[in-house]
Amino acid sequence: MIKKFLMTPGPTQVPPQVLSAMARPIIHHRTAEYSQLFARVNDNLKYVFQTKNEVLSFASSGTGAMESAVVNLCSPGDAVLVAAGGKFGERWRDLAAAYGLACEYIEYEYGQAVDPGDIGRSLDAKPEIKAVFVTHSETSTGVVNDMQAIGAAVADSGAVLACDSISGMGSAEIKTDAWHVDVVVAGSQKALMIPPGMAFVSVSEKAWVLAEQSKSPKFYFDWLKARKGLSQPQPTTAFTPAVSLVVGLDAALGLIREEGLENLFGRHIILGRACRAAIKALGLELFSPDDDRSSSVTAVQVPEGIEDSRLRTLTRDKFGVQLAGGQGPVKGKIFRIGHCGYYNYTDILVAISALELALSELGQPIQLGVGIAAAEKVFAAGVA
Amino acid sequence: MIKKFLMTPGPTQVPPQVLSAMARPIIHHRTAEYSQLFARVNDNLKYVFQTKNEVLSFASSGTGAMESAVVNLCSPGDAVLVAAGGKFGERWRDLAAAYGLACEYIEYEYGQAVDPGDIGRSLDAKPEIKAVFVTHSETSTGVVNDMQAIGAAVADSGAVLACDSISGMGSAEIKTDAWHVDVVVAGSQKALMIPPGMAFVSVSEKAWVLAEQSKSPKFYFDWLKARKGLSQPQPTTAFTPAVSLVVGLDAALGLIREEGLENLFGRHIILGRACRAAIKALGLELFSPDDDRSSSVTAVQVPEGIEDSRLRTLTRDKFGVQLAGGQGPVKGKIFRIGHCGYYNYTDILVAISALELALSELGQPIQLGVGIAAAEKVFAAGVA
Repeated sequence: MIKKFLMTPGPTQVPPQVLSAMARPIIHHRTAEYSQLFARVNDNLKYVFQTKNEVLSFASSGTGAMESAVVNLCSPGDAVLVAAGGKFGERWRDLAAAYGLACEYIEYEYGQAVDPGDIGRSLDAKPEIKAVFVTHSETSTGVVNDMQAIGAAVADSGAVLACDSISGMGSAEIKTDAWHVDVVVAGSQKALMIPPGMAFVSVSEKAWVLAEQSKSPKFYFDWLKARKGLSQPQPTTAFTPAVSLVVGLDAALGLIREEGLENLFGRHIILGRACRAAIKALGLELFSPDDDRSSSVTAVQVPEGIEDSRLRTLTRDKFGVQLAGGQGPVKGKIFRIGHCGYYNYTDILVAISALELALSELGQPIQLGVGIAAAEKVFAAGVA
Repeated sequence: MIKKFLMTPGPTQVPPQVLSAMARPIIHHRTAEYSQLFARVNDNLKYVFQTKNEVLSFASSGTGAMESAVVNLCSPGDAVLVAAGGKFGERWRDLAAAYGLACEYIEYEYGQAVDPGDIGRSLDAKPEIKAVFVTHSETSTGVVNDMQAIGAAVADSGAVLACDSISGMGSAEIKTDAWHVDVVVAGSQKALMIPPGMAFVSVSEKAWVLAEQSKSPKFYFDWLKARKGLSQPQPTTAFTPAVSLVVGLDAALGLIREEGLENLFGRHIILGRACRAAIKALGLELFSPDDDRSSSVTAVQVPEGIEDSRLRTLTRDKFGVQLAGGQGPVKGKIFRIGHCGYYNYTDILVAISALELALSELGQPIQLGVGIAAAEKVFAAGVA
């Protein structure tokens, strides 16, 4: 009997309350019943985003909402800045290229954080830069960038700041308004605790000005169409929404409101801390930074002599724990433990235990239980 | 106690087998388990599409897949032809405008079918036309266009034929390959019997040639990216798929294969026939054509002296049956009964009965039961 534990940074585990909400008979999206639900969802999204801005939603993966930011903020030929140190940061660059933007690209090694000073210097050197695109939580490396400092670096320039917080929103705190982040993209299948298929984007007043001027071609991801839907007496989307996912999101956001933001982010900080403590106690090397900001994903270097795919196949097929591999240049070199969303101390203990058992079976000289003991010490000190 | 019957042409009722499949714990999309499921889904989509072409899937509403056809087939300035007689046909025109195409537009009144001869004449007059965009099942009017004749009109030209079969696929037959339809768009929330949030597009060899040449900017809806995902040893999507919907689709397509295409389309023909017989027996006027091709949606003129919104509120709130209103220029003038997907004779009886009871309550001089009797006669003659 295998019990399965999905410990990947998206999709993430879906709470049973959400699964059962989504299993109810479907409702129509042009009704008062749906509009009330959608209005409540939008209010609760603003709560999690910590913003007074409108949060638009799309039936798409997170990449769709990233594309929406590029095509609504920019026109062909516009100067933009992308600062990236991982696979999802690179996606901003690829999107900018696809839409004919003049992209200045600050590249960091996988695993390095964005230096807010670099962004400030680029903006000083090129005042024509219209938009800055960065990643909040870089899912591919576990790095969470310092959005407060990046926000401060951009706020006084003429540029807008757009940030991918797909794996950050709801697990690594982002204070959208207080930190001057004009555009924040989120996805459904991470800490928002529902299956993939929805994506979100909050838009500041400064960003709406650009959206009204943008000449990039667009239709499905047109923010003005989305805003028009939200401003109806019965708020709605421009195109048919992913109704069952919205119903699930309503349930998931209810759980988040019940927990409260302080507890929510506190829990994730402890989960990351426990994970890191366990990894270090086992004598493994962390790849993601050893700081409390890394509360969504813990990335670990694959120990010498161990084959990554064998390790993860073993944790999954024998011990029921699905971990994520590396991507891009760190494929095969790191593995990742996702803990953004519906995770608590029990999941970390199971994941670390599976890792201990698998490493041991593969002949790695570790002492069984020392990772677990280190994690437990963290949990004993601060409840998650 | 109200029992609810969703009789709208999308979302449509979701079978309990599908709801329960979607309520299972979520799985990760970069695994052998998912790839096997996705490969089976793709095979079964080809079966329903009646094609050997690849069927690409997107996490989006149907409009997203329509946009994908426009941006992958065309480059800015390309001459295209749109022939439309309803709200969703107009969407092709709006998409062509958004992407800077030179669009010739053949407009029909709402409720009229596309004349294949008009398309042939336009292609003869303008051989530079690269793509023809039409609607198979026009959800807003109930008209199902003759795709076989339209396909024949386009097949020998240099143009590709793209068709929106969002509310047609799986209810009004379309023989993609035999009828020379290069690109067919479908949506999840109609006769494919799952909630909204996924869309599909089949692409012929002739269409792939254009896709490889297209210069329209694109990223999320890029067909080449999607094809690359399908050609992996473990077939996948370019971006995170809507996993729970794909799992539901697997269950829904299983039901379709069990029923078989002949029974599937036969059932829908009978449902449309019964609906129309009932409407006529009640002395109401059909808006959609009185032909067997109209097997997805039956559109009915609102009787004089009856207010559409009062009628539909009554059928919904008192009798549990949700009907759809009119759109665009026929808003308030027609109502629509959707019967594409998980519907059989019981649903038609309930819908017609709710209509009889509501019309009677609103003082319309109808004889209770005559609609039901007419529908029953159809069902007695041919089982649905």
